[in-house]
Amino acid sequence: MTSVGAAPGVAEIAERTRAFVRDVCLPAEQRFPGPELDRGLRAELQAAAREAGVFAPHVPVEFGGRGLDISGWSAVFEEAGYSLLGPQALNCAAPDEGNMHLLEIVATDEQKERYLRPLAAGDVRSCFAMTEPHPGAGSDPGALATSARRVDGGWVIDGEKRFISGADGAAFSICMARAQEGATMFLIDAENPGWQVGRPMQTTDTVFAGGHSEVAIRECRVSADAVLGEVGEGFGYAQVRLGPARLTHCMRWLGLARRALDIALDRAAQREVFGSRLEELGLAQGLIADSVIDIEASRSLIRWAAGVLDRGSHGRHETSVAKVFVAEAVWRIIDRSLQLTGGDGVTADLPLARFQNEVRSFRIYDGPSETHRWAIARRASRVRAGERETSPD
Amino acid sequence: MTSVGAAPGVAEIAERTRAFVRDVCLPAEQRFPGPELDRGLRAELQAAAREAGVFAPHVPVEFGGRGLDISGWSAVFEEAGYSLLGPQALNCAAPDEGNMHLLEIVATDEQKERYLRPLAAGDVRSCFAMTEPHPGAGSDPGALATSARRVDGGWVIDGEKRFISGADGAAFSICMARAQEGATMFLIDAENPGWQVGRPMQTTDTVFAGGHSEVAIRECRVSADAVLGEVGEGFGYAQVRLGPARLTHCMRWLGLARRALDIALDRAAQREVFGSRLEELGLAQGLIADSVIDIEASRSLIRWAAGVLDRGSHGRHETSVAKVFVAEAVWRIIDRSLQLTGGDGVTADLPLARFQNEVRSFRIYDGPSETHRWAIARRASRVRAGERETSPD
Amino acid sequence: MTSVGAAPGVAEIAERTRAFVRDVCLPAEQRFPGPELDRGLRAELQAAAREAGVFAPHVPVEFGGRGLDISGWSAVFEEAGYSLLGPQALNCAAPDEGNMHLLEIVATDEQKERYLRPLAAGDVRSCFAMTEPHPGAGSDPGALATSARRVDGGWVIDGEKRFISGADGAAFSICMARAQEGATMFLIDAENPGWQVGRPMQTTDTVFAGGHSEVAIRECRVSADAVLGEVGEGFGYAQVRLGPARLTHCMRWLGLARRALDIALDRAAQREVFGSRLEELGLAQGLIADSVIDIEASRSLIRWAAGVLDRGSHGRHETSVAKVFVAEAVWRIIDRSLQLTGGDGVTADLPLARFQNEVRSFRIYDGPSETHRWAIARRASRVRAGERETSPD
Amino acid sequence: MTSVGAAPGVAEIAERTRAFVRDVCLPAEQRFPGPELDRGLRAELQAAAREAGVFAPHVPVEFGGRGLDISGWSAVFEEAGYSLLGPQALNCAAPDEGNMHLLEIVATDEQKERYLRPLAAGDVRSCFAMTEPHPGAGSDPGALATSARRVDGGWVIDGEKRFISGADGAAFSICMARAQEGATMFLIDAENPGWQVGRPMQTTDTVFAGGHSEVAIRECRVSADAVLGEVGEGFGYAQVRLGPARLTHCMRWLGLARRALDIALDRAAQREVFGSRLEELGLAQGLIADSVIDIEASRSLIRWAAGVLDRGSHGRHETSVAKVFVAEAVWRIIDRSLQLTGGDGVTADLPLARFQNEVRSFRIYDGPSETHRWAIARRASRVRAGERETSPD
Repeated sequence: MTSVGAAPGVAEIAERTRAFVRDVCLPAEQRFPGPELDRGLRAELQAAAREAGVFAPHVPVEFGGRGLDISGWSAVFEEAGYSLLGPQALNCAAPDEGNMHLLEIVATDEQKERYLRPLAAGDVRSCFAMTEPHPGAGSDPGALATSARRVDGGWVIDGEKRFISGADGAAFSICMARAQEGATMFLIDAENPGWQVGRPMQTTDTVFAGGHSEVAIRECRVSADAVLGEVGEGFGYAQVRLGPARLTHCMRWLGLARRALDIALDRAAQREVFGSRLEELGLAQGLIADSVIDIEASRSLIRWAAGVLDRGSHGRHETSVAKVFVAEAVWRIIDRSLQLTGGDGVTADLPLARFQNEVRSFRIYDGPSETHRWAIARRASRVRAGERETSPD
Repeated sequence: MTSVGAAPGVAEIAERTRAFVRDVCLPAEQRFPGPELDRGLRAELQAAAREAGVFAPHVPVEFGGRGLDISGWSAVFEEAGYSLLGPQALNCAAPDEGNMHLLEIVATDEQKERYLRPLAAGDVRSCFAMTEPHPGAGSDPGALATSARRVDGGWVIDGEKRFISGADGAAFSICMARAQEGATMFLIDAENPGWQVGRPMQTTDTVFAGGHSEVAIRECRVSADAVLGEVGEGFGYAQVRLGPARLTHCMRWLGLARRALDIALDRAAQREVFGSRLEELGLAQGLIADSVIDIEASRSLIRWAAGVLDRGSHGRHETSVAKVFVAEAVWRIIDRSLQLTGGDGVTADLPLARFQNEVRSFRIYDGPSETHRWAIARRASRVRAGERETSPD
Repeated sequence: MTSVGAAPGVAEIAERTRAFVRDVCLPAEQRFPGPELDRGLRAELQAAAREAGVFAPHVPVEFGGRGLDISGWSAVFEEAGYSLLGPQALNCAAPDEGNMHLLEIVATDEQKERYLRPLAAGDVRSCFAMTEPHPGAGSDPGALATSARRVDGGWVIDGEKRFISGADGAAFSICMARAQEGATMFLIDAENPGWQVGRPMQTTDTVFAGGHSEVAIRECRVSADAVLGEVGEGFGYAQVRLGPARLTHCMRWLGLARRALDIALDRAAQREVFGSRLEELGLAQGLIADSVIDIEASRSLIRWAAGVLDRGSHGRHETSVAKVFVAEAVWRIIDRSLQLTGGDGVTADLPLARFQNEVRSFRIYDGPSETHRWAIARRASRVRAGERETSPD
Repeated sequence: MTSVGAAPGVAEIAERTRAFVRDVCLPAEQRFPGPELDRGLRAELQAAAREAGVFAPHVPVEFGGRGLDISGWSAVFEEAGYSLLGPQALNCAAPDEGNMHLLEIVATDEQKERYLRPLAAGDVRSCFAMTEPHPGAGSDPGALATSARRVDGGWVIDGEKRFISGADGAAFSICMARAQEGATMFLIDAENPGWQVGRPMQTTDTVFAGGHSEVAIRECRVSADAVLGEVGEGFGYAQVRLGPARLTHCMRWLGLARRALDIALDRAAQREVFGSRLEELGLAQGLIADSVIDIEASRSLIRWAAGVLDRGSHGRHETSVAKVFVAEAVWRIIDRSLQLTGGDGVTADLPLARFQNEVRSFRIYDGPSETHRWAIARRASRVRAGERETSPD
């Protein structure tokens, strides 16, 4: 099953990405048993991606990328996600990819040169510091507790963060804090002594460069030009970032789900049970078909939401619906694939158990499925209430 | 929740259809308690649809329609399906709509004038005679048993059909029979003495004009020009008809599912239980959100498959995947809506129990879900086998 | 699949019931196409049941029954439910069966002679009047609005009821009303002029004798001895009735689900598709196996809850869990069976579509699944909170 | 939620086990972060269990156990499974527990003294060697490839095994091999030079003492009295072992599922989101209730199957149905619990992600869910065919 129907230009880059992943990333996976990608391997893969003409597909041409729109990302990121190494090779992994997008839209020209350019080039990594220990910002971002107060010539930030993906090794952070005027984003350099990256959290996933860390922010002084966008507009920018960011997770993980299905199909074609090839047994076919349907529905929802974003909407409804569906579908697909591979599936001989551990948290981060369902239902009630008012129905 | 993102032109017709259904069809439903739409009401609604500029959106302009492509149908048919009366009002109900499409592509000019023109105008109804009693053509069309043999100046057809939707009251049938050269389609006029419409089958649905009948075909003589398309090409044409036909079922029933959700939302907004409005209770919100997600995934799959058909593909994979998903999603949505309305839902005070009876068979006709899953799985195995051959993976 | 493991004595009555249903009830179904069982047929079947020694298995011996405990009912009622006619033939249909149980426990000796004896004998029918129009007693019984005020020599009751199963044709009602001292149960004779049975509600089920009616209670005078049990204890008695009553629904409907599966198995054994018997196709086997699992899990939960009731507990947790699971399982089983029978399943040639309409409301009455889930979750939290307090964990 | 309704005597041992697990095993879990239980800790826990009077509940009194029947195991093993350390502490972990049961039934008195006594006492561990590399014995045990040929004074065994749980560190193996007379079981001492335990397989679970290993059996000579039971009866004995063995997995894992739910309940009671305690939010309550229902249905199915085994049946149907349901239910319960704990759930701060990795393979070993469904469906068709033959229905 492969991605079809993408726009011309996009189709070609997607096809090249597909070949690159197959020829370069899949073989390299042997050298990445986890838990984390080696810097040298990362640089090597990024160089190869540049040479293959598939590096940074989402980055504007002026910053060294291919300048695709979000619909274009759908096809390419899915191909990249087919390997755990693909997104880093193309420099379109989270959280860097979302940060690039945000910087492109909100940052000043100076900030772009200083932060976006090296990030887009793959020279540095970054992180996005929003989540806090309970009862701070979590499922409910409004609970933001990190504070920012104005001081002479800048700001002083204080607070606790956790689950900060990529903090360990990042050159800078986009950090959310509460100023008097409201939530505000700050660019904090990693060498700032007030920015203290703590213990890595032991999560089941391994594919995020730098893992996920706790961060203590202590009397952290930044200058006035460290503010990203307008003071007090942080939640708005978070939405600007979040819509595409949750959708790009969907794209990449859908690629991995497709990979899982392919692994299962390969085995089902070879393995004989009770005198038949596994792929000819109806109960196995049921698992396969359900996964194909999940893949196509996921891809269709992603394409729809991407189109809405490309037409300039914030796409809150569309990305929320897509996120819930895809996060759950990806989980099901990998689980069915593992089931199809039997005992081997739960060993390290196949990567499927690892895949399951990689994607489990996707149903939780960027909003747990339950929070999204809650929001989706309330929105539906609200929209319908509006229709009742304007309609004789 | 309404359909968004349709192409311009289409959007306007969809919007007009939406208004037409709300202003004309929904009020008229009081006059259609079932089991079957009165001819007078049908004519009245079609006249109103013509006046509203929404009649026959799928029919070429030269035959009196709006000439939309299949992607265009998606938005409009969904709006039509919001009322059980909508599709007949717009003359886009099954099986006529599929027959129009088939005639447009395959019929000779003479056949078009004789059969397509009055059908497109809503002056007559038609039927499609393929399904046979066991062990004839059913889930497995290859079991076709009705025979056609050449005689002087034409053909003689013999066989048994059943589940022939709309046969009772149809002006003509497109009938599949097995000639020496292979499966062949014939145009049979209803007045042909060899065409004997038998008992109406008592099914749970009521919305198909003419219901579903058994038909005996006895020494049924037709002239040589009754052949539709080429002799022996019947199965190919059946596919030409089936791809869009199963997708238009999806479009229409999705509209009905949206209606069911709206009924539930309206009630959830008014009803208080345990001191809260029903729409504010989390378990109700879960049902609502799952239905919204099902609607959006269904619509996305339909749009994807329609686009593939519009680009000239037979779309076998895409329409099959969409059909399985949408048929099951529509069922779930109506079921959840009924659950949200409590005791009232199972009474005739609300139409939801009826909706459930209308759509139950959609998981069976045009291929049961299980047959589609079987085909989807085998196709996935085949495609993947091809990839293994051409890839070093 | 048949019920096994029942206690001796019970096993024999269950076996006889099984034979009775097969030999007497199933053939009689031809004479009961719906919507409601004819009085003559009912009397004839009850006479036959008496002769077969299977009449009133749940009724104490002194009132003419077999005196089984609730665990014993499980096996017998399931066998009875295998036919839509079985429960009435054995006089163990709702709501009479629940009323008999309640009268046996709460009624005075005089009330037993006057109401329980003829009811247990099948000479009369009864009803239970609790549910009211919104915003009265419904999912939330505490909203009870019907009033009872003391007058000289008795009471005057006023209110509105709806969904009163069996009211049309019942000889008497057990009616819940709110006295000053709290909710109270009253025995009201049908000929009381203040008891006005209104329109039958058009529901999708047909198997309840007398259907479901609205009832207006207008200045309804009853004497002091019409009170059932103690004044103010109505909610407690409702629980006494409800625990077993919701469990007996589970027992009977499980029988019908088993019947549905048998119909599907019979067809799957005969029907050939794509060159195989349907029962040999993996996707059909998946549907069959899931239904077998649902049947066994349902039966195990019923047996567990019945045992708890027999040991004297109110069994609120157990009957609630069993009710949610079984109501949903029965629905799934019938739906899969219908799917296995293809087109025939949605016609009146098979009873499956009717079965679906009969059981749809079971997920709603006696507490909608969502209300039960809510209660189950809160109870779990409460129990766990107690464990936390008493444990070092 | 705790286990209720167990027989007297059993209830008391279950209660003591519950206290033992809470007071001894749960605190000790800090000392067992995985991947494998230390010998010292194991001995310490077993000594404590002996002292608490809960050691070896399934072992006959004459061999030092409590002599419970299989129904009795249900309650006690579930309590033991509440901690990952419980089953080893009580010496009722797989595969030893199943081996004890088999030895008790099949072994000679001498074999019992030599193998069962030290095993029951916890002095040694054992393994069961049946599964082979593809295309040998796996889902289809009939494919057994390991050979046993008679030689002077005994046998020589040759073959390959894999997924041999506990082989590393076991004192002996019960090994299945194909003699001329048919499949036969042999007792092989670990020091036999022909018994070569190979690499540990890297599986996602960690709780099985000794992990799972590949084993090479090379010219492995055993004496004539190494045969367990009769020559050629191996498959029969495998069934004797497998029925209870798959059920005891259900019992133990159900305990872990209950633990997972308790962890989630504890957190839902403390955590506030959007202004409410998590346990008061409907969508969380839905997850909780579904898990409670899964727990009760699992326990009811286990109790039913255990009763059938205790009455002397092989219980193939019952244990198969219970195994499919419980393995899938346990998976769902842990997954929902993890979802309820949000981000913390995927970290090592909570054990839930580990639990998920522990139980994933239970849907595969002892027969994958799909193989069981296949067998269940075929059995249902067979049973129904028998009913058709003997019934006028």
